[in-house]
Amino acid sequence: MVPFASRGHVIKPLNELTATEIVAAIGERRATCEAVVRVCLDRVDSREHEVHAWAHIDPKTAIAAARALDSSGKRGPLAGVPFGVKDIIDTFDMPTEWGTPIHKGRQPKRDAACVALSRKAGGLLLGKTVTTEFANLHPGPTRNPHDLTRTPAGSSSGSAAAVADFMVPIAIGTQTTGSTIRPASFCGVFGYRPTYGDHRMHGIMEASGSLDTLGILARSIADITLYRDVLLGIPPEPLAKIERPHFALCRSHIWDQIEPITQTLIEDAAFRLARAGARVTELTLPAEFELLNDAHRSISSFEFARTFTWEIENHWNEISETLRGGRLQDGFTGNFARYIEAKQLADECRRRLDALMGGIDVLLTPAAFGEAPVGTPAFAGVPLYQVWTALHVPAVSIPVFRGTAGMPIGAQLIAKRHDDRKLFACAQWAYEKLT
Amino acid sequence: MVPFASRGHVIKPLNELTATEIVAAIGERRATCEAVVRVCLDRVDSREHEVHAWAHIDPKTAIAAARALDSSGKRGPLAGVPFGVKDIIDTFDMPTEWGTPIHKGRQPKRDAACVALSRKAGGLLLGKTVTTEFANLHPGPTRNPHDLTRTPAGSSSGSAAAVADFMVPIAIGTQTTGSTIRPASFCGVFGYRPTYGDHRMHGIMEASGSLDTLGILARSIADITLYRDVLLGIPPEPLAKIERPHFALCRSHIWDQIEPITQTLIEDAAFRLARAGARVTELTLPAEFELLNDAHRSISSFEFARTFTWEIENHWNEISETLRGGRLQDGFTGNFARYIEAKQLADECRRRLDALMGGIDVLLTPAAFGEAPVGTPAFAGVPLYQVWTALHVPAVSIPVFRGTAGMPIGAQLIAKRHDDRKLFACAQWAYEKLT
Repeated sequence: MVPFASRGHVIKPLNELTATEIVAAIGERRATCEAVVRVCLDRVDSREHEVHAWAHIDPKTAIAAARALDSSGKRGPLAGVPFGVKDIIDTFDMPTEWGTPIHKGRQPKRDAACVALSRKAGGLLLGKTVTTEFANLHPGPTRNPHDLTRTPAGSSSGSAAAVADFMVPIAIGTQTTGSTIRPASFCGVFGYRPTYGDHRMHGIMEASGSLDTLGILARSIADITLYRDVLLGIPPEPLAKIERPHFALCRSHIWDQIEPITQTLIEDAAFRLARAGARVTELTLPAEFELLNDAHRSISSFEFARTFTWEIENHWNEISETLRGGRLQDGFTGNFARYIEAKQLADECRRRLDALMGGIDVLLTPAAFGEAPVGTPAFAGVPLYQVWTALHVPAVSIPVFRGTAGMPIGAQLIAKRHDDRKLFACAQWAYEKLT
Repeated sequence: MVPFASRGHVIKPLNELTATEIVAAIGERRATCEAVVRVCLDRVDSREHEVHAWAHIDPKTAIAAARALDSSGKRGPLAGVPFGVKDIIDTFDMPTEWGTPIHKGRQPKRDAACVALSRKAGGLLLGKTVTTEFANLHPGPTRNPHDLTRTPAGSSSGSAAAVADFMVPIAIGTQTTGSTIRPASFCGVFGYRPTYGDHRMHGIMEASGSLDTLGILARSIADITLYRDVLLGIPPEPLAKIERPHFALCRSHIWDQIEPITQTLIEDAAFRLARAGARVTELTLPAEFELLNDAHRSISSFEFARTFTWEIENHWNEISETLRGGRLQDGFTGNFARYIEAKQLADECRRRLDALMGGIDVLLTPAAFGEAPVGTPAFAGVPLYQVWTALHVPAVSIPVFRGTAGMPIGAQLIAKRHDDRKLFACAQWAYEKLT
């Protein structure tokens, strides 16, 4: 591994730098794009046979792109940063197979907007990360890098594992239920689900268009802040500071399903934040919000079962039993009136949450029921994510806890729609106080 | 041309039947799927060199599919109905080129959801219809079938022209501004833009995801009613009846830009509907709704310029000057704060419209400024469509007027979000009274 020697900085291997650190190192000529990419590829080489984070990886192309960037001298806000992309997101130079044998070898002719925006900013695509089948329940081969016997969670399994295992500093995932926040919690990295509708989704496999968003996996809030601006196609602004954030502990109606250790950790975090100078209150969601679990399920299943009509009609036998008997069966039996009612309820609750939150900056709530379980039962905790995803609010998971087995557990912070930047400021504040 | 002889029905060539009539004729064994497809293809043969409605057409495949359907005896709600699809919508068996040389020969591996749902219901894909470049302003070769010197309007140019010229009974378009309602008006057919969010958009080129919807072009409201249910993936329900609809004339703040002849036709239609037994009132939109024009422009340009990052970065010189200097320039200069404000304003106005409409069933407003102009200045009337499209409301254009040159002009009817079925009932009622 190539050591990274800096002037007065902590010495870290290049693959352990954050994106922000890589951009600075390259900008100050303390590293080359090629060196960064090579060290990341070395890390993949030494670990991939155990972690299985990648669906496709293309060292030659990545090295060639790094060299070209080195010699061009072009510098964008993401210059020289290797990134991974969930394999439901189109890339013109690598296949995009959606985690299903049905689309084996599928080769798009263009990049999805998020990939093109990353490359435009100087990012170097290292490869495509493993997704569960159609970004739904049926798991891929990825394992949790902290304990290979455990699940990394899904559906953005490979993106979370690759970032956690220091193969890339940042990766793009997606979230329709908990597909970014859950693997971020299980793998001990930062995960971000944006306000619904902010990012262009073209070139990304649609699962449930009324709920799908991009997701970012990274090892710092500064990186998420930077990468969000890149993916919005706007000039990056540094992470804002907040003086005395107002957190509200929100247990929500699924609190009983949360593991006791996680309950304790979250409640304890609320005390510690208060002690560190935050204003900390509690928010109880109105009873009507319990209906959001069913609403999320009605919307996502109804849409999923129609989005994949071509696969259902032409490749039924190549779809997993998990998906056929689960989401699809659910979607076939759904009716349109219930689907519309669910969307109207979600819309109404979104407005109510704005009012309920008043002067609260962010809500504090669990990012998972508990630690990553052994095996691949990747999808505990669905009810936890349904509520927030249906509300279209931005969410961040910060890696601040350890469970009884020593595995990571995240705290989830939730802001009002469009308060993404404030969310980052509060997340950074909380992360500093809780670690 | 093969005549269609029926028991007591008017004798019409098969290509002039509506989808509903074709389904009935095939169901009652008065016609075969193959005969219908062949007559439609004959019509294309005799007219396409003048109309230029098609980007790709594949007679062999269509005839083979028709024969297979005839011999299988399978009957779906759209059995034997030939349909056309705008060439920004993916089809596994035909290229999908988005009206740009950049994507010449682009061959998707699967059908878009709307195409797969159409085929599942027994529809027979005849071909891909001409779209303007990236479904934006730069026109394709299509001409108005009522007068070849005039524009069919865009961006769903080929879909509207093919339906108007009796080449297919139904075709799918899309609408981000006025891309379905405007060509429906210019070509004298029925056009329908659904409530935003109802239909799955996967496999359809995204232009501006916060505004894009499917669109249906057809020659009857019954066909639109049928095809909407097929595209929603739900069991079709026949067109509902309404006893005494409540129309409200809505001139909106762009009334001064409407041609005087169209103003007169719309006001006269309001009188005639009242005389025919409808309740007719007026609705004046609050002044704030004028801001929706700018809001629509901010949202669509900001999103468009990011969606097409790959094309902008890699194929700038193959993009038309119309698009580079127009929508893209506009999108590059847009800023994120204004974009979010525009989305919030639109969201707020949507809620206000629900309240404003109260017991009103549908609004009556123009579907275009006037007749199709000579040449290809296809995009008059943008301000007329921006307001309604930003409001996410369903809209129908009904072909009930003629201008001074004898060209069609549509009346546009607008319902509250999710009142699409009521909209169809009112549109049918109005069409019967106004023709």
